[in-house]
Amino acid sequence: MNSPVFDPRPLAPGTLRVIPIGGLGEIGRNMTSFEIDGKILIVDCGVLFPEENQPGVDLILPDFSPIKDRLDDVIGVVLTHGHEDHIGAVPYLLRLRQDIPLIGSTLTLALVEAKLKEHRINPYTLTVREGQHEKLGPFDLEFIAVNHSIPDALAVAIKTTAGVVLHTGDFKMDQLPLDDRITDLRAFARLGEIGVDLFLPDSTNADVPGFTAPERDIGPVLESVISKAPRRVIVASFSSHVHRVQQVLDAAHANGRRVAFMGRSMVRNMTIAADLGYLRVPAGVLIDAKKAADLPDNKIVYMSTGSQGEPMAVLARMANLEHQIEVGKGDTVILASSLIPGNENAVYRVINGLTKLGANVVHKGNAKVHVSGHASAGELLYVYNILRPKNVLPVHGEYRHLVANQRLAMDTGIPETNTIIGEDGTVIDLKDGVAEVVGLLDLGYVYVDGSTVGEITDADLKDRRILAEEGFVSIFVAIDAQTGRVIVGPEIQARGFAEDEAVFDAVKPLIIRALTDAAENGTRDTHAFSQVIRRTVGRWVNSSHRRRPMIVPVVIEA
Amino acid sequence: MNSPVFDPRPLAPGTLRVIPIGGLGEIGRNMTSFEIDGKILIVDCGVLFPEENQPGVDLILPDFSPIKDRLDDVIGVVLTHGHEDHIGAVPYLLRLRQDIPLIGSTLTLALVEAKLKEHRINPYTLTVREGQHEKLGPFDLEFIAVNHSIPDALAVAIKTTAGVVLHTGDFKMDQLPLDDRITDLRAFARLGEIGVDLFLPDSTNADVPGFTAPERDIGPVLESVISKAPRRVIVASFSSHVHRVQQVLDAAHANGRRVAFMGRSMVRNMTIAADLGYLRVPAGVLIDAKKAADLPDNKIVYMSTGSQGEPMAVLARMANLEHQIEVGKGDTVILASSLIPGNENAVYRVINGLTKLGANVVHKGNAKVHVSGHASAGELLYVYNILRPKNVLPVHGEYRHLVANQRLAMDTGIPETNTIIGEDGTVIDLKDGVAEVVGLLDLGYVYVDGSTVGEITDADLKDRRILAEEGFVSIFVAIDAQTGRVIVGPEIQARGFAEDEAVFDAVKPLIIRALTDAAENGTRDTHAFSQVIRRTVGRWVNSSHRRRPMIVPVVIEA
Repeated sequence: MNSPVFDPRPLAPGTLRVIPIGGLGEIGRNMTSFEIDGKILIVDCGVLFPEENQPGVDLILPDFSPIKDRLDDVIGVVLTHGHEDHIGAVPYLLRLRQDIPLIGSTLTLALVEAKLKEHRINPYTLTVREGQHEKLGPFDLEFIAVNHSIPDALAVAIKTTAGVVLHTGDFKMDQLPLDDRITDLRAFARLGEIGVDLFLPDSTNADVPGFTAPERDIGPVLESVISKAPRRVIVASFSSHVHRVQQVLDAAHANGRRVAFMGRSMVRNMTIAADLGYLRVPAGVLIDAKKAADLPDNKIVYMSTGSQGEPMAVLARMANLEHQIEVGKGDTVILASSLIPGNENAVYRVINGLTKLGANVVHKGNAKVHVSGHASAGELLYVYNILRPKNVLPVHGEYRHLVANQRLAMDTGIPETNTIIGEDGTVIDLKDGVAEVVGLLDLGYVYVDGSTVGEITDADLKDRRILAEEGFVSIFVAIDAQTGRVIVGPEIQARGFAEDEAVFDAVKPLIIRALTDAAENGTRDTHAFSQVIRRTVGRWVNSSHRRRPMIVPVVIEA
Repeated sequence: MNSPVFDPRPLAPGTLRVIPIGGLGEIGRNMTSFEIDGKILIVDCGVLFPEENQPGVDLILPDFSPIKDRLDDVIGVVLTHGHEDHIGAVPYLLRLRQDIPLIGSTLTLALVEAKLKEHRINPYTLTVREGQHEKLGPFDLEFIAVNHSIPDALAVAIKTTAGVVLHTGDFKMDQLPLDDRITDLRAFARLGEIGVDLFLPDSTNADVPGFTAPERDIGPVLESVISKAPRRVIVASFSSHVHRVQQVLDAAHANGRRVAFMGRSMVRNMTIAADLGYLRVPAGVLIDAKKAADLPDNKIVYMSTGSQGEPMAVLARMANLEHQIEVGKGDTVILASSLIPGNENAVYRVINGLTKLGANVVHKGNAKVHVSGHASAGELLYVYNILRPKNVLPVHGEYRHLVANQRLAMDTGIPETNTIIGEDGTVIDLKDGVAEVVGLLDLGYVYVDGSTVGEITDADLKDRRILAEEGFVSIFVAIDAQTGRVIVGPEIQARGFAEDEAVFDAVKPLIIRALTDAAENGTRDTHAFSQVIRRTVGRWVNSSHRRRPMIVPVVIEA
């Protein structure tokens, strides 16, 4: 069902070429390249987390092929904010060229630098803030404050001789955010007056009617739950959600409780956020997790990772009694987080485990302890009306989200012909207010598995899915290729198929017979003998077990 | 985290023993046995659908071990309604003893008989209806109308000399259901007056605050979407949801459209429901799917299966252009169904595929096209207050649901000591108004895979999960066991690991060396040589790839 790939024409001077490299057709691995007059600007470079049909994959990177032969032309990477789906692939890009400048806000750069340190990369950076203008070669950049579920997020306006582009990054329009830093609609209005030729808006919540509720709504709920909790409180959330953690700190403080951060990324990120002043820590509220155990149970809040049911994170280990903190009757656990599609069963396993240990588990299904970080349909309509962009390329979303965002654009009067439903690799040229699709590059998924990048292919994943569904049966024989006579074997091994390998005794004579028959019919090479074994075992297992395990024959000429 | 298993004392005469065999700790495979004075009554016998960590499994059955040596004492199986999680395991039970009587309402028995026909079993049945009493040995049964997402559902009161039990089956309390058949609270009240000693209520929605919305709310939404649809309409829902389909038929009829049923189970179930009068088909509205293609696009509604994103069902095949009906621009697809946890990504893949083909996809995320079939917390409170049962054993739910239901019972004044949070295999004895846990049987999951029942073990599934995450590497060698000298091999095969098997050239000399070293150190048997290979390859692959594939060595003495 993929669209046909076609090569773009050569890029004409004075024309801006926009290529979404990742984030169109998926929630994650956001990355867009902008090229004019031989220079390339990149906005964001994030990772995608694998789904259940991509087993064993650690991360999915954008396919860097549109830029990997042009790295010297890359003038910089603008990072709109510090979430993994926007910065997570930076180390993999910098492995290709370490001195590509990274441009972002203070918090964003602090988070990406901490990540790069683990990869032993010390990047070149340019710190910017809202309202700031920077000229990078042919690109005149203006950074605009936007509100999101992490502080210090920026939209970026990219002015070139070919036209004005506005990329929102991720955003929502909480009108009373905790840090009073609202999405700067005045700046959007000013850009709208000048004229925005191409608008790239966040589509994540475009299919959600209405308006995203304010983050502030959560504080009183946390406060109420914590005030009534008879013993320990454990709150799990995203480790970069500074404002959520702020509200936990405040609610704990108001109830005379101290807070211990748990989980490597929570400790790291909150230390950074506090050092830089994004997290306001009430005096004396923090306590080291090791010392927290000495406090009375009703004087402590643990702030932890693992809200998505990740098996190795703090919360899942607590639910499995594999953590030094033994959850028990009277403890309260709050999952102050969303439930990312695909994680439901993992999260419910954790909730069931904690409930079984006696904890009272509060989550978004039974209390208002989460709001989204993305603009819903109602907010997007405001933005379209204030900007009135000439052309729209919805970004950050699966196909359904992009189409929902396109419809909102059309509802505000933008003609359908001025909207582009793109995919990763769509090539769009912009000039004189006209945005035109001029190509579609063939971009794949790049899988990180262990220390390997791009070695696992879709064919490997297909094999893994078959192995998962059916297991495998391997058959070894050494034969006399002239007669098909089996000299060693058949040795049969199976995994994930059935416990007792004695079941295969029945098929061994069939294999021996089939090989000699094949030799009599002129078969001589080992590959053909392998096929004979595959067919023989396949038919047998299908009729005896109605199953289709992977069959792996190994034939050696003795 | 599982509770310790312990054997129950022998069952005393005049005492009722209750064993939930399935459905406690999971949503599915519902089955409860009741025993008194040597006779056993079973309520429901359903299947559980596997989660993503049970790859390749088709179905999960209740573990029949508590009754499988007592089959001749089984006096009957009451089936509360016709959903798979209540009737799906009946064929597997009847394989053990074909003449166990099945007791249920007209529709329930029609659905189970259709299922048994596919297994070539012709069952003994006893059709009952609401208000009816039946005496089966020591059990005095009374059947009570309950409202659910399938017609003709029954609760069952079980009166014995040991006390009165009420089992709700699945239910909710829609006060204005399409068939005017409400949950019979008068009967509940009457039982409450007599005194209910043990109450087994549906817990599925016990953690959902408030009240489940009426099924009738969906009609106007369907009507509105269908009336505005410019071309074809495809509605997907559960193939047993007669009232949902009724509303689709009515909305189609009101808009001058005809309806074609699509998908084997939809056609089968709706034919049964129409024949028995549960589905009222407006004259001339139905059309054969093959003839429907001749109608104008705006005159047809396809009613199909596949609302959970099942890859082989009609809807997913449409989304992948693998179905004769080619969805295109202007078509409307309505997913009038819930989203069962774990199915999200599959469903969203279908929605994205249909959207990409140009369809407008309406689902519970963007319109009110689904209501649940289960009583929410508010409804359960009514039931507790009207019944005032002495003891409560919440059924049908994961641990979190059972505990939520227990809390509702306690909120209405039932002492905690009179509530039982059980699990599959908990043994409860009831006598003189006292319900006591007297044992916990060790009941496992019974996996159906292909034609095999109970052959796939948890160890096989663990292997499958490893294979899925990491793939495998198999190593074959024939050696001289005296010297460790490799005579044939090492032959290395890998799947799901990396495409290019040349990577293994590096490890072959290490294997050869390790084997001779081992022989020099006294190793002689093939098992020990296998371990040497496993260690050698494991270390190499971990350091070279940071991965942990399954390593399958095969050593033969030559």
